[in-house]
Amino acid sequence: LTRRAPNTPQLGIVLDAALPDPLHRQIGAQLRRAILERRLAPAARLPSSRLMAAELNCARGTVLLALDQLIAEGYVIARGRSGLSVAADLPDDALVSPAIAGRAAGAPAAGPILSHRTVAQLARAAADPSADGPHDHSPIAFPLGQPDRTSFPFRLWAKLLDEEWQSPGWEIAGAPHPFGHPGLRQAIVDYLGVARGFSCEPASVVVTTGVRQSLSLFARIVLDAGEEAWIEDPCFPGTRDALAAAEVRAVMVPIDREGFSPQAAQAVAPRARLAVVAPSHQFPLGTVLSLQRRLTLLEWAERTGSWVVEDDFDGEYRYSGRPLAPLRALDRAGRVAYLGSFSKLLFPALRLSFMVLPASLAAATETIMARLSARASLIAQGALARFIADGHLVAHLRRTRLLYGGRQQALLAAAARHLGGRFDVAADAGGMHLIARPHSETRFDDRAATAAAAARGVRVSPLSACYAGAHKADGLLLGYAGTPDAEIEPAVMVLKEALAP
Amino acid sequence: LTRRAPNTPQLGIVLDAALPDPLHRQIGAQLRRAILERRLAPAARLPSSRLMAAELNCARGTVLLALDQLIAEGYVIARGRSGLSVAADLPDDALVSPAIAGRAAGAPAAGPILSHRTVAQLARAAADPSADGPHDHSPIAFPLGQPDRTSFPFRLWAKLLDEEWQSPGWEIAGAPHPFGHPGLRQAIVDYLGVARGFSCEPASVVVTTGVRQSLSLFARIVLDAGEEAWIEDPCFPGTRDALAAAEVRAVMVPIDREGFSPQAAQAVAPRARLAVVAPSHQFPLGTVLSLQRRLTLLEWAERTGSWVVEDDFDGEYRYSGRPLAPLRALDRAGRVAYLGSFSKLLFPALRLSFMVLPASLAAATETIMARLSARASLIAQGALARFIADGHLVAHLRRTRLLYGGRQQALLAAAARHLGGRFDVAADAGGMHLIARPHSETRFDDRAATAAAAARGVRVSPLSACYAGAHKADGLLLGYAGTPDAEIEPAVMVLKEALAP
Repeated sequence: LTRRAPNTPQLGIVLDAALPDPLHRQIGAQLRRAILERRLAPAARLPSSRLMAAELNCARGTVLLALDQLIAEGYVIARGRSGLSVAADLPDDALVSPAIAGRAAGAPAAGPILSHRTVAQLARAAADPSADGPHDHSPIAFPLGQPDRTSFPFRLWAKLLDEEWQSPGWEIAGAPHPFGHPGLRQAIVDYLGVARGFSCEPASVVVTTGVRQSLSLFARIVLDAGEEAWIEDPCFPGTRDALAAAEVRAVMVPIDREGFSPQAAQAVAPRARLAVVAPSHQFPLGTVLSLQRRLTLLEWAERTGSWVVEDDFDGEYRYSGRPLAPLRALDRAGRVAYLGSFSKLLFPALRLSFMVLPASLAAATETIMARLSARASLIAQGALARFIADGHLVAHLRRTRLLYGGRQQALLAAAARHLGGRFDVAADAGGMHLIARPHSETRFDDRAATAAAAARGVRVSPLSACYAGAHKADGLLLGYAGTPDAEIEPAVMVLKEALAP
Repeated sequence: LTRRAPNTPQLGIVLDAALPDPLHRQIGAQLRRAILERRLAPAARLPSSRLMAAELNCARGTVLLALDQLIAEGYVIARGRSGLSVAADLPDDALVSPAIAGRAAGAPAAGPILSHRTVAQLARAAADPSADGPHDHSPIAFPLGQPDRTSFPFRLWAKLLDEEWQSPGWEIAGAPHPFGHPGLRQAIVDYLGVARGFSCEPASVVVTTGVRQSLSLFARIVLDAGEEAWIEDPCFPGTRDALAAAEVRAVMVPIDREGFSPQAAQAVAPRARLAVVAPSHQFPLGTVLSLQRRLTLLEWAERTGSWVVEDDFDGEYRYSGRPLAPLRALDRAGRVAYLGSFSKLLFPALRLSFMVLPASLAAATETIMARLSARASLIAQGALARFIADGHLVAHLRRTRLLYGGRQQALLAAAARHLGGRFDVAADAGGMHLIARPHSETRFDDRAATAAAAARGVRVSPLSACYAGAHKADGLLLGYAGTPDAEIEPAVMVLKEALAP
């Protein structure tokens, strides 16, 4: 398919109909390059379009399209009857360095490519083997934070989207509020009242693209770059990234049986002005923050004018007992931002989370979000509002709670049967994953084990990667919510092989 | 509707059926508060649920629901046949400060509320009257950056959404690539090849939530906090915010007739390693960056290992002439990130933009985006991919180009008729707005004029707010694309009144 034009060697034009670029673009690009590289001298006359078309074996119209563009760009000058010539005055000699002329497109240049903070973040990512592929959609067992793949009613969802976008008002399609769809914000308020037992105003509810965006935004609003925030150790690694994105220094506070300890935190970093905690079901350990600690934390925040971010991680999935009141429900001084997410409950591509702000921060946050243009897509928000308001969310949670409770049981049984000799896997009253911990006498490297399992097609995550402090525990995190029933025991058996000493 | 329980004065429970909270939540919340505030003493016996129900004039089941929750939370202890009592050991006295006990929910606390950077950003916003309401959807004339309200084919759009979500694959619904929908990224590549004349790989195309997110992300990846970037003065105020979000220092470089001047920039800030420019139609002045300047800028980037962000602002809307080749098409050293947006072309709530990365940065950016969880919503991406691939985008651009070209003519005619004595309004070969500049002898304060126009229901934006440097020009930006034909002349007449000396 390659056509060479033997009589235009000075132009070096090579057309290839197999390329995605249409022929006139190819001609234009190569003429432009020839001019820039002085293979076509300034003021030189060009062959007629008729001749070029004949030589290139293409339609004259194709050549004319290319020449029109070059004329518009100033590379080529039309001189009436005397035809076309290369522009005399543009570009001048100083503009085209030998380096430009000689280098192929896209070749790396000298000099530092990435900022230091990017390199640091890449290093954090490299040290976290569980983060290898958030967009990796195989194997199925045992990804973290993934819901079941078949439970969500996509046909209903498609219908709601269709209905919402038939003829949207301009207040939705054109100039949405930075905090999101008013109907969705109201639906979230109603849902939280029923499901989590606290009241709030739609004016304090911000729809965001994810828990990390919520955290990063909140940290930026209340803290300056370089200030300190307490986070739990271990914790979800994304928490550290979200704070780093806000240039806030994360100070790790080891958690104990009662969860995050405000006393320990004050000993480590007395000047921190933000605490980030997951009280209802700590990630990854599943610890529930005791009531006493909750109250102490709130008292600290009020006394010092500090802030608490409550990441209600896995709050929706409890299989026994009843949840404690969220910090937000106990907060009477307006110091708690409550974070929730729909992406993990419904399907990850939804990318909709929310933050219930302390009311005193709503106005400033609105301005900041408008300036940052940080609002979440409105496309799904109307449909999600109806999904919640019409009771589909509660029904979906009821269905998946039963499903995941059963999967946890199946994983416990399979683990007892196949891994019991070397690992303890304890039941958890909530959440979407379990932890396989090696018996204390066993030598175990959870990163090596993760790699060995991945090599056999089973995806687990190393517990140690969730720790940032000096003390780390080894173990494997097994997400069961997104693992079909029938695959649980076979995957555990593969895991056993992978972990064989 | 308020029911008072005369026989439980010590509890002070007041139920209000008009509140959104169900009665059992109201009972639970008020009992919890009475316990925390010691109005119900530790270990005190509670009245029976039957008695409480009678006293509160509600169903006994309602009271039991509330008590169950308090038991689960540890506030209340069930003692078998002897009934319920307040927990003796929780919370202890130190936990509830008088301040907590005495303060109403949500009241502001002492201490600094906002970070200094937030205060600085609020000040920038306050100094920019055009930013008063990005979610303000009236009046209609003359908002900036708003497309026509009636041209977009929403029924077709609803149908595409419906079809895309009937039964999505898990690679879309479950674990999308951080860069977005593969089909959309391919459609963008194809579109750019045809519309803007350059080729790129889908692997370098990142779908983002907006131009500001693109810029902020790119700046973060290539620059460290505190490093300098050149921006045009005047420019879109959001550009400064996006760089501030990445903690990058924006250095303003005044533009001249040929646009951004690399020479002037090097004189002002020789160590800057990033240039942010809008070469095809500079905002707000509409200047087109000359070819000579384009080449000089690319040569600088290559020589110094620096980067160029090309914001192809308004590149799609040209009414006469042909566009110059984008920087990206001239970049053979791989130093240019190309930014585009669909939100302004289709409808703002879409919130989908894109960035074509230098190929050498794609891998690092993918990891960073996955860690930051910064990806754009997938909900609209499949539908948008079909919208582009099936030719609807090009058709929509053709329709709106005609429409907006006509509106620019209408605005020019109305301005000449009604504002000609005091203002010059020059035609522009492209874009979605015009600038009304006062005759040189006129004293004019564009911020006061903006406020006066807004008071009469016409929305204009002050040119001076786009300047960050010492030299500012006064003028009014009139967005015509989103202003219906029939409203243009009446709005100009209102504007004339508002501007009367």
